[in-house]
Amino acid sequence: MRNRFDEQLESLNNSLIRMGALCESAIANATKALLEGDRTLAGRAIEADSEIDQAEREVESLCLKLLLQQQPVARDLRQISSALKMITDMERIGDQASDISEMVMSVELDPAAHAIHIGDMARATIGMVTDSIDAYVRRDLALARRVIEADDVVDNLFLTVKSELLAGLKINPAEGEAPLDLLMIAKYYERIGDHATNIAEWVEFSITGVHKGELLG
Amino acid sequence: MRNRFDEQLESLNNSLIRMGALCESAIANATKALLEGDRTLAGRAIEADSEIDQAEREVESLCLKLLLQQQPVARDLRQISSALKMITDMERIGDQASDISEMVMSVELDPAAHAIHIGDMARATIGMVTDSIDAYVRRDLALARRVIEADDVVDNLFLTVKSELLAGLKINPAEGEAPLDLLMIAKYYERIGDHATNIAEWVEFSITGVHKGELLG
Repeated sequence: MRNRFDEQLESLNNSLIRMGALCESAIANATKALLEGDRTLAGRAIEADSEIDQAEREVESLCLKLLLQQQPVARDLRQISSALKMITDMERIGDQASDISEMVMSVELDPAAHAIHIGDMARATIGMVTDSIDAYVRRDLALARRVIEADDVVDNLFLTVKSELLAGLKINPAEGEAPLDLLMIAKYYERIGDHATNIAEWVEFSITGVHKGELLG
Repeated sequence: MRNRFDEQLESLNNSLIRMGALCESAIANATKALLEGDRTLAGRAIEADSEIDQAEREVESLCLKLLLQQQPVARDLRQISSALKMITDMERIGDQASDISEMVMSVELDPAAHAIHIGDMARATIGMVTDSIDAYVRRDLALARRVIEADDVVDNLFLTVKSELLAGLKINPAEGEAPLDLLMIAKYYERIGDHATNIAEWVEFSITGVHKGELLG
């Protein structure tokens, strides 16, 4: 019985790692599409979104099956309930990579012309996503905590990008639409950073039993 | 055993209804704060966010307890797993009501001066949230489906508001910051509409066993 359970847990782990890899690739493609105006990559990030949704359902039903059949306790229960929550954040990262890509598909954007720091913001956010998933894979508490701290960097970059867009609008108001679209894209990155933070907080919980400083289980 | 389970399900139901009421009140307060510039109400919506977070944790642990202790099947299992997903969307609605309120607190905004339709958008979104929760409470499939359809109305109002903001920016570029902040607020409303749609889709699933047109379990 116990061996079967360990196998199922390992299979859950592998599914989560695959889902994480899909998210990393979606956000990397969306970002390359944005910065280089590459619509093929944008299309790929949009396609990845339904694969990520599918992966979410698989992990979800695996988690529910494990909860129902095995009645896990303590650390195992924490791991499964963390997985159930993490996939919601991963799925939103997929949504947002797809939202960014749809904007790249629908309008001509030259991000660097309007906000120099949008590339930095994108790279910082990708770093958070990659690290949050690595922290899960390696059960690396220190890395999870670095992700949580990195969220402030992304939040500050958002304010920088917003100021850059605003300054550009004052100089050239006729170019109104691109700055508005880029502001929305910057907001998507900021949200992706929030989701990576949530993932890192669930990693912390699954290791320590403490979630956002509060003892949960 | 069965009676105890029914009691627990009813208690879960009541907790979800309370959490839904908190969300409705948070978004209503945030909107009144925005449209009338009332910072007291904005403060109340921000406070409600932590109550909503607390409610999410309570419902979550109740759901996990029910799954573990009772091993429900069929309709009961659907109801509990739907609850587990719905609360994530409710919690995000609370976050976004709080995000809107924080913008009301930090800057002077006169929404009607920049985008006439932002009030309509807010009202349409509140309607979706209220209806999605009512659909859950009354197990009303037709109402859940109306919520899912209403999402297009909110999406179109977002585009209208964006055009209004853009037109205003071209006439008066010096007023750059307020339109950018209002665009972000409009985006929050659009996202709240997405979350209400998700809730309605889970209501549909808990009644029919079909999620977004796909048979899940």
